[in-house]
Amino acid sequence: MGAKREKIGVGILGFGTVGTGVVKILLSNREEIRRRLGVPLELVRIADLDVDRDRGVSVPSGVLTTSAEALMDDPGVDIVVELMGGIHPAKDFILKALSKGKPVVTANKALLAEHGEELWAAARDRNLDLGFEASVGGGIPILRSIREGLAANRFQSIFGIINGTANYILTKMTEEGRTFDEALVEAQKSGYAEANPSLDVDGHDSAHKLCILVALAFGTPVNVKSVHTEGIAGISTMDIEFARELGYRIKLLAIAKAANGEIESRVHPTMIPEDHLLSTVKGVFNAIYVVGDAVGDTLFYGKGAGMMPTGSAVVGDVIEAARNLIRGAGGRVPPTGYHEDGRRALKIRPMEEIECAYYLRFMVSDTPGVLSQISGALGRNNISISSVLQKTRHAEHSVPVVMMTHRAVERNIRAALNEINRLPEVSEQACLVRVEGEE
Amino acid sequence: MGAKREKIGVGILGFGTVGTGVVKILLSNREEIRRRLGVPLELVRIADLDVDRDRGVSVPSGVLTTSAEALMDDPGVDIVVELMGGIHPAKDFILKALSKGKPVVTANKALLAEHGEELWAAARDRNLDLGFEASVGGGIPILRSIREGLAANRFQSIFGIINGTANYILTKMTEEGRTFDEALVEAQKSGYAEANPSLDVDGHDSAHKLCILVALAFGTPVNVKSVHTEGIAGISTMDIEFARELGYRIKLLAIAKAANGEIESRVHPTMIPEDHLLSTVKGVFNAIYVVGDAVGDTLFYGKGAGMMPTGSAVVGDVIEAARNLIRGAGGRVPPTGYHEDGRRALKIRPMEEIECAYYLRFMVSDTPGVLSQISGALGRNNISISSVLQKTRHAEHSVPVVMMTHRAVERNIRAALNEINRLPEVSEQACLVRVEGEE
Repeated sequence: MGAKREKIGVGILGFGTVGTGVVKILLSNREEIRRRLGVPLELVRIADLDVDRDRGVSVPSGVLTTSAEALMDDPGVDIVVELMGGIHPAKDFILKALSKGKPVVTANKALLAEHGEELWAAARDRNLDLGFEASVGGGIPILRSIREGLAANRFQSIFGIINGTANYILTKMTEEGRTFDEALVEAQKSGYAEANPSLDVDGHDSAHKLCILVALAFGTPVNVKSVHTEGIAGISTMDIEFARELGYRIKLLAIAKAANGEIESRVHPTMIPEDHLLSTVKGVFNAIYVVGDAVGDTLFYGKGAGMMPTGSAVVGDVIEAARNLIRGAGGRVPPTGYHEDGRRALKIRPMEEIECAYYLRFMVSDTPGVLSQISGALGRNNISISSVLQKTRHAEHSVPVVMMTHRAVERNIRAALNEINRLPEVSEQACLVRVEGEE
Repeated sequence: MGAKREKIGVGILGFGTVGTGVVKILLSNREEIRRRLGVPLELVRIADLDVDRDRGVSVPSGVLTTSAEALMDDPGVDIVVELMGGIHPAKDFILKALSKGKPVVTANKALLAEHGEELWAAARDRNLDLGFEASVGGGIPILRSIREGLAANRFQSIFGIINGTANYILTKMTEEGRTFDEALVEAQKSGYAEANPSLDVDGHDSAHKLCILVALAFGTPVNVKSVHTEGIAGISTMDIEFARELGYRIKLLAIAKAANGEIESRVHPTMIPEDHLLSTVKGVFNAIYVVGDAVGDTLFYGKGAGMMPTGSAVVGDVIEAARNLIRGAGGRVPPTGYHEDGRRALKIRPMEEIECAYYLRFMVSDTPGVLSQISGALGRNNISISSVLQKTRHAEHSVPVVMMTHRAVERNIRAALNEINRLPEVSEQACLVRVEGEE
C-alpha cells in the first residue's frame, strides 16, 4: 500500500466563500504545506455552476468546471472537498466520491447532523477518510482534539459557544446596550448574519454542531430532533442587565453532559459567571469548553466562521487525508473517533429531567403578597431560592422580580411556572434562563 | 502491513507521578479506550527502581519490574512510555526502544529541547511514532493542533503561558498582593513549586517547551541556548500594581514570532492588556495563544501539569501510536510535523533586534530636571514615550517614575537604559518589562 506519490490532487465542489478560502490557502501556502507533507497539494479541479464570477483569486486555467461528475471522475483528483452546502446533491456527491475510493472533506454541519451516520458508515466501510473539522468551531481544531488528543478521557461535559452570529448579537446587547432587534440589524449589516437569521439566532445551527460533538465525545448517534433547542430572540436588555448585576453574562451555549449513562444535549441561552472563561469570548469568536475525567477543564478558542478560518480547517483535513493516502492508512481514525464495534446508542435525557440552577424573571403588579405567592409556588415544587432582586422601575404598573434558584429539576421549574404564570398579579410569561458554569 | 491485533501492550519506564496517572487512566478508562481503538490497550510492564512504594493504584501482578531492559525486550510491549525524566538514561532507553522497532511516548521536555533533533531523526528513519504531546502544556493537545489541525497555516506568532508554577506565583502576587518570595513559599507548600524552583521561576522550563513549539510551528531546529530567557524573580509588587493601574497584567510568556524569515524566540515577564484572553489565565493553568495566517487568533487552555492532565496527554499519544500500529502507519506524521526534506534552519533573531513596546520603571530622587534627563536619553535613542506615571510615595528619598514606550528596538532601549542608569539622580537599575498583545 501507499505507492510513492509525486503529488496529491485536490478537487473542490462549490466555489463560494469557504471554497475561495480553501483555494487561497492552497495557492498561497503551497510551499509551507509541501514542507510538511513532503509532496505538493495540487489544486486540480473546482466545480461550480458559476465559473465566471470574480472571487478575487486567480485560478490556474483548466481548473474550473461546471461538472461535479467530471471532477469526481478526474483521475488526478485524489481528495474531494465538498463545500456546496445543503443536503442534496451534496450528500449524493460525497457518497459518490467515497464509492470511487476517494477520501472526502466537508464543512457541511447540517448534512452531518442529519445524515452523519450514513456518511460515516460509508467512509468507514471503505477505510476512507471523511474529514469534517470545519463543521464545528470553524478554524478551531476541536473535533480532532476530542477524537485524538483527548482520546484517553471519559468526557464529562462540553459547553460550546459555537454560533458566531448569536454571540455577536449577545455581545452587542451586553456591551452596548442594544436590543436584540438592533443588534441583529447590525450583524446583518456587518455580514455576520443572514437575511433570514433563524438558523443562527434560533439555535438550530448550534444544535447541528452539538450533534456532531456528542457523536465524537460520547460515541453515540444523536438525532437533532432530540436536542432541546432555544434561541436568543427572547432575551431582553432587561435580562442582560440583571445578569450583569448578579455577576453573570448570557451566552447561547450548546451543552452536552454525561449523566449516569444518559446524555444531556441542549442548546439555550445560559447565564455563566462573569469570571468564567466563556464569558470573555466576544463577538463572532467561538469557544468550546471541554471537561474530561483525566484532563480536567480545557478550552479551545478561535474564529468560528469566515472564509479563511474555515478554509484553515478544511485544508487541515485535506492534509490529514493526504498523509493517510501517502501511508495507505485511510480511515486510520474512524470518523467519529470510535471503532464501529465501540459505538452504542445512549439515551438522550428528556429535558424535564435535567437539573441546573435557574434565573427567573417575573413581571408582577406591585401589590403586597405577590412575592409570597411566587415563592410559595416554587417551594411547593421543591425549588429553593438563592437570591431575589426586586426593583421598582419607572412607576410602571408591573415591575420585574428576579429570583435565582439553587439547582432544581426542570420538571419542577415548569410546574412552578405554570402555577405562577396563572396568578392574576403576574402580567406576562416568566422569563427563564438556565445557569451553568458554577463550581 | 498491520496484521490484525487482539490487543496493544504498553510498557512504562518510570513509576512516578505521571506514570501513576497513566496507569490510573489505562485501568479506569480501559473500556472507553477499547471502544475508540477497537482493541484493548493493555498495561504489560512498569519498570522502576522502586517497586515497593504504594502509589495509590493497584497494579496487576507481574507487571512491575526493576529492569528497563526486560521491559523493552518484552515481546508483549508494543509501545514504550518513557516517564523517567532527566537526560540519561532516558535518552538511551528511548533510542533503544526505537531501535527495537517500538514506538515511544515521552513527556520529557528537557530531553527534547536538548536532543530533540537526534531523537526525532531516529524515529523518522524507522517510520516509528515518537509522541511528546505531554511535554508542552500538560493535557492541552497543543502540539497535535499545530502539527495537524492547523497544518494549513503559516504561523505568525505564539504566546504561551506554559509554566504553571510561574503563573501561580504571578497570580498570587496580582490578586492577593503577595511578594514574589511569599508567593513562592505558598506555591511550594501547595506542591506547585519544587524545593529548588529555578527551572520554573527562572524561565528555563518555559524555554525548553518553547524550543519544541518553535520546531513544530516553524520547521526549524532551535537551540535552547539561543532562546533569550528571563524569569520572574525580579518582578516586584510595585510593578504588578503599576501594570494594573495602566490596564495590564504581568505574565511569564514564551514568545515565538515569524519575522521576515527569522524567528523571534524568547521567554520573559510580559505585560499584556487586562482584556486579553491570556490575562484571564490564572493559577497553575496554562494557555497557548497561536496566530496563523489563515485561522487567525486561537487559544488552547487547560491544566499544564499534574498527574492526570499529563497522563491524559501521554495516553492520547499511546492511542495514536496504537492506531498507527494497527494500520501499519507508524510515523505517519513526522515528529515535528515537517517532512524531513521540508525542515530548514532559520535564523533566531538576536534579542537586540526585536521590537516591541516597553514598560520602564526608574527609581529617581525627586529633584527637578530628572524627568527631562530620562526622556532626553530615550529620545536620543529613537524611543518615543506613550505615557508617564509619576507618584510620590511615602516621602522616601527616591520615587518611581514609570514610562510606557511606543514600539522600539531592544538595542535602542538598552542603550538608553545604559545612559539613564548612570545618572546620579537614578538610584537603582531600571526595571524593564516588555509589552505584547496589543493591536
